Amino acid sequence: MKKKVNAAILIIGNEILSGRTQDKNIAFISSWLNTKCGISVNEVKIIPDIEKIIIENVRLLSKKFNYLFTTGGIGPTHDDITAQSIAKAFKVKYEFHQEAYEILEKYYGKKNFSDGRKKMAKMPRGAKLIYNPSSAAPGFMTKNVLSLPGVPSILNSMIENCKKYLIKGLKIHSKTVSLYTVESNIAKNLGKIQKKYKKFVDIGSYPFFRLGKIGVAVVTRSTSLPKLKSVNKELMQLVKLKKIKILKI
Amino acid sequence: MKKKVNAAILIIGNEILSGRTQDKNIAFISSWLNTKCGISVNEVKIIPDIEKIIIENVRLLSKKFNYLFTTGGIGPTHDDITAQSIAKAFKVKYEFHQEAYEILEKYYGKKNFSDGRKKMAKMPRGAKLIYNPSSAAPGFMTKNVLSLPGVPSILNSMIENCKKYLIKGLKIHSKTVSLYTVESNIAKNLGKIQKKYKKFVDIGSYPFFRLGKIGVAVVTRSTSLPKLKSVNKELMQLVKLKKIKILKI
Repeated sequence: MKKKVNAAILIIGNEILSGRTQDKNIAFISSWLNTKCGISVNEVKIIPDIEKIIIENVRLLSKKFNYLFTTGGIGPTHDDITAQSIAKAFKVKYEFHQEAYEILEKYYGKKNFSDGRKKMAKMPRGAKLIYNPSSAAPGFMTKNVLSLPGVPSILNSMIENCKKYLIKGLKIHSKTVSLYTVESNIAKNLGKIQKKYKKFVDIGSYPFFRLGKIGVAVVTRSTSLPKLKSVNKELMQLVKLKKIKILKI
Repeated sequence: MKKKVNAAILIIGNEILSGRTQDKNIAFISSWLNTKCGISVNEVKIIPDIEKIIIENVRLLSKKFNYLFTTGGIGPTHDDITAQSIAKAFKVKYEFHQEAYEILEKYYGKKNFSDGRKKMAKMPRGAKLIYNPSSAAPGFMTKNVLSLPGVPSILNSMIENCKKYLIKGLKIHSKTVSLYTVESNIAKNLGKIQKKYKKFVDIGSYPFFRLGKIGVAVVTRSTSLPKLKSVNKELMQLVKLKKIKILKI
């Protein structure tokens, strides 16, 4: 029987922490895990390119969750230290991965296969490759840790190649109802419904502004489709009772 | 004498974790702290709306860093549990804040001041208000923890009102040089420069794709302007040596 499977994401990179670069990987990975694999992301952390901190977090998060995804720090420069840090975290050797070396050598050509580029073939011993259809340099999986690059377009092209390494969890069903109302108008009743279905359904309410109008998106999520339907039935009764206009179901 | 001041950001919200909503607050808060206050963000965490987890993280991060910023969970609905969780984290009462109550009562009018809206005036005892020019409901500071709402437009309108509560750190100078080259072409030399200036300057290199051309943005950051200039002088020598075209300095 399928069960709940969870994951954490570890974003490694000073450029995200400093606010210089807007992260786009968290929402992408999390949505993909949710919808394609039934895996829910329960924690995200953004940390600097500092070996000690990477090691600490890889150990902690890989123990705490079924999977850990890391992004960033697997390029050719001095600040790319994810691979060696993961090797140290798991106390395995950091060495050339034969197949990765061959892929990169073929991609760049023997003549242009510089030391920086060779560095991208060094991985924790025993790592399994995550193929990269857009720029060759593979990601890799060490124990339950999947390491992807930080550049969103490259990461996006690789994500499907993670699938074969993942055990799928229960599908998480989700329904969003967008209402023309304010949160405080439905807060009390929504709280009651949440209490009733506490164990089975998560209800979130998120204010929005669209075309000058104020509204609330009510998002319900559950691994049980019947329970999700029951909650949404009660929500519709509330909408009727309060005479709230619906923007979108 | 000014010294280094740091902060962490705690994003509270299932909608960010699930990937349904793209976070925009991390980059905004971090850039603002960096440029306006000389405060560097050293850790970011995204966690679900679960009381136990919020308490745990507020305790941990408020101890570990000079300031902790939280976003999300201060609205009127059942899933807004940031204020009571922070009260529990610091073992203080969760109660109506007199001034916040008055602000909200005035804003909504006595007749429309419902229970949900009143909830937004409940805070940890001793909290200091962070005024909200766009939608009235104030944020608040408890010890060294500053709590802001999750909606980016509202958060943005409030950020300047955090300033008076913050001790400013050393200004962090930063310079970005965008080059038409690939990372592996400069990796080795850049590594040498970084090693030489290890204690004073952080050098990051970030690949980019612009108008079909591949490039690398080299970002240098330091609290010492002279050291930053020295590093950039060496970087320019490297650019000359390798005959690299400059896109932007």
